[in-house]
Amino acid sequence: MQTVSRSDQAARAQDTAREDTSPTVEVPPVTSGKHQVVIIGGGFGGLYAAQQLGRADVEVTLIDKRNFHLFQPLLYQVATGGLSPGDIASPLRGILSAQKNTRVLMGEVTNVDPGQQMVSLADGRIVPYDSLIVATGMSHFYFGRDDWAEVAPGLKTVEDALEMRRRIFAAFEKAENTADPELRQTLLTFVIVGGGPTGVELAGALAELAFHTLPNDFRHIDTTDSRILLIEGMDRVLPPFPPELSTRANTDLEKMGVEVLTQSLVTDISGHQITLKQGDEVTTLQAGTVLWAAGVRDPGMGGILAESTGAERDRSGRVIVNNDLSLPTHPNIFVVGDLAHFAHQGDRPLPGVAPVAMQEGKYVAKLIQKQLKNDTLPPFEYKDTGSLAVIGRHAAVVNLPWAKLTGFFAWFVWLFVHIFYLIEFDNKLVVMTQWVANYFTRKQGSRLITEKVFEKGEARAPATPG
Amino acid sequence: MQTVSRSDQAARAQDTAREDTSPTVEVPPVTSGKHQVVIIGGGFGGLYAAQQLGRADVEVTLIDKRNFHLFQPLLYQVATGGLSPGDIASPLRGILSAQKNTRVLMGEVTNVDPGQQMVSLADGRIVPYDSLIVATGMSHFYFGRDDWAEVAPGLKTVEDALEMRRRIFAAFEKAENTADPELRQTLLTFVIVGGGPTGVELAGALAELAFHTLPNDFRHIDTTDSRILLIEGMDRVLPPFPPELSTRANTDLEKMGVEVLTQSLVTDISGHQITLKQGDEVTTLQAGTVLWAAGVRDPGMGGILAESTGAERDRSGRVIVNNDLSLPTHPNIFVVGDLAHFAHQGDRPLPGVAPVAMQEGKYVAKLIQKQLKNDTLPPFEYKDTGSLAVIGRHAAVVNLPWAKLTGFFAWFVWLFVHIFYLIEFDNKLVVMTQWVANYFTRKQGSRLITEKVFEKGEARAPATPG
Repeated sequence: MQTVSRSDQAARAQDTAREDTSPTVEVPPVTSGKHQVVIIGGGFGGLYAAQQLGRADVEVTLIDKRNFHLFQPLLYQVATGGLSPGDIASPLRGILSAQKNTRVLMGEVTNVDPGQQMVSLADGRIVPYDSLIVATGMSHFYFGRDDWAEVAPGLKTVEDALEMRRRIFAAFEKAENTADPELRQTLLTFVIVGGGPTGVELAGALAELAFHTLPNDFRHIDTTDSRILLIEGMDRVLPPFPPELSTRANTDLEKMGVEVLTQSLVTDISGHQITLKQGDEVTTLQAGTVLWAAGVRDPGMGGILAESTGAERDRSGRVIVNNDLSLPTHPNIFVVGDLAHFAHQGDRPLPGVAPVAMQEGKYVAKLIQKQLKNDTLPPFEYKDTGSLAVIGRHAAVVNLPWAKLTGFFAWFVWLFVHIFYLIEFDNKLVVMTQWVANYFTRKQGSRLITEKVFEKGEARAPATPG
Repeated sequence: MQTVSRSDQAARAQDTAREDTSPTVEVPPVTSGKHQVVIIGGGFGGLYAAQQLGRADVEVTLIDKRNFHLFQPLLYQVATGGLSPGDIASPLRGILSAQKNTRVLMGEVTNVDPGQQMVSLADGRIVPYDSLIVATGMSHFYFGRDDWAEVAPGLKTVEDALEMRRRIFAAFEKAENTADPELRQTLLTFVIVGGGPTGVELAGALAELAFHTLPNDFRHIDTTDSRILLIEGMDRVLPPFPPELSTRANTDLEKMGVEVLTQSLVTDISGHQITLKQGDEVTTLQAGTVLWAAGVRDPGMGGILAESTGAERDRSGRVIVNNDLSLPTHPNIFVVGDLAHFAHQGDRPLPGVAPVAMQEGKYVAKLIQKQLKNDTLPPFEYKDTGSLAVIGRHAAVVNLPWAKLTGFFAWFVWLFVHIFYLIEFDNKLVVMTQWVANYFTRKQGSRLITEKVFEKGEARAPATPG
């Protein structure tokens, strides 16, 4: 690998700083002379890379905007009141505290300079690297209608999940408060856009809420009057799964009370009105709550990287990588996880799921260690360990390379896998405890409405008679 | 009791509604003809009153701005990252769902009309009552310096706790990011104003964080350089406790690394500078984080009640009540919990603690049932079951009527009592599990920095060398 020595870089960085008007300050390594691995993003890809480098003879700097790793596969349970954010988040410093060669920097990367081999943070700090791993993930995408973000929140961050939770439980409260039967039915109508795993899991959890958890909690409304619609553009839900599992998921969802609309596109959202196109037919429906679980887009880091390195990207903004996950133009810059477009295996890029990110992160970490010994590794190869999606109580689909599971057993496998991969020991314990309690009581204890209780004016509906 | 029949009230309410320009709408009872008990506030006082009335031949309407009951005695653990908000909050509807004569209304009371016997909500709804129980509690008080609220957040709501948590953990992050040793020490200085139970508990939890949880998590700062100061105006911490327990708490705090300043008054807070008056001596100190745990004040409901009923109030705004907790002017309006000034026992009003609120709520509920049978109860009498405050790991003080406990045993009693009184079964389980994990790992897993990551400009400190 061609790298400039760190002290040269530091000198040049400080020159740059002097020329610049902003107070640019270098963050020097803890131990100078060590090969500097900088990782941007503490999700599955970045964290697994950092952990794999724990005993390596390098210094690792993990940069994240947030101070915690988020276990995104369970975020839908925060959105629906089953778990608390703290149950599925782990402080990055805590996870990595015993790893002495690793430091965590909280900050937002605004630029990558592949010539000087350093990244710049929004606050003016610059961090030199010898190897750079970019693992910043993807955001959701409104297909060009960014104005829908206001009416149809997505589910990527803790704040997103709390906003969904607020809207879901406020909708029931507003329905309880109104005397207008039409408005009440609108408020009890929930539309989930996108029939991938997140959409399916949200729809199932909402059905559990409306039809099992909440019915006895209200006196003026019957929450079983709720309509929960899952809208998918393709011809079946869970498109990445084998067709027979999609069919089973569809049946399970309908049994739970979810209306599944496939081959349906949302063409407009305006206030409470949603316009759908199903083939040539255009229909509208009234829904108080719209949840977005469709589309992926680079939230910005892919663009920064493309601009500074000339890296190519796909339509969604993913960065196209070599078969060792490095950039074609820069062998010491790697992209892993959802942001990487890896198409060297099969005819499609690898899916944006946690196991891919974990394996990619580990691979790059191992490759860097090999490179330091002037050795290399065979190209990255994703080992498909299976994919799973939960639908509801006793219902899930699991697609293993050697078997397809459904129903109770699949649900049990899903539970086990999620507990197993939760990062911290106390999260494993607490989530398990909470799930056991939720299972038996069917209560979802974390359905707090916080921050804005209602949007301004939302609570101003007239009261309802008995 | 003199009450107007409910249907008369409804008619009059609707007349009022017609005269008014705002869309006033009555919320009629679920079962007409039943004696209507309206409870404002779902804290300990209101909730225990509602539960006591569960089998009574009345209809209960519990009104709260929030959709959950908050177990405030553990709020300091949310502020310091030990627990999640969902662990100590329970949905009011969930708690009361099996109680068929009870409904929950989410809304904010803006007026009480004792003539018409009804309360008005901010959204225009009006709720008629035959008996009214006001249990809205108290807020913190900045001794006339409301501008300090910005720099020194208090601890009453979930949002307060999350804001404290954000500031505490962001302070360590900012200290890690700065190269200025003076600023770093300021950022590592935490001042807690108020040496009552909340202040003592916050100080102890912060000491545990700085000196035991975090030291290995940072690479550029030593969190054991932190200073934690507890400021109390009286001559000892925990003033309501017997002097020997205050002395013991003081010793325990100092052993944990907290600097306790008694007979000290905060006279000014300006940016990072805090001015203290100790006797005639005026000193200043620099602190990055100031937490407020002093002063109580009526947040508004006491004023509304005083204005509409002519009820008298004390200096803090508490409503002065009869020995049966009713208003001298209106025998069918009761005030319970922190907002009630009950001075018929001893020479001081009862303290604003959970056991007082619980007993008062239950008493009024029983009294209303007696009154419906044209019977009455002897005056309310608070049975002091003891008071407790935790200082840290293995350290607490417990003041029982028949014994004073300190150290490990007191700490164990404290743990047990708090688990016991947590409202919901799943919260008991989860908090117990989380505590066991926290005890053994000494990690505080819920230290998420959410919403604003840093205040605008806060992260712009220069980076630090090794």
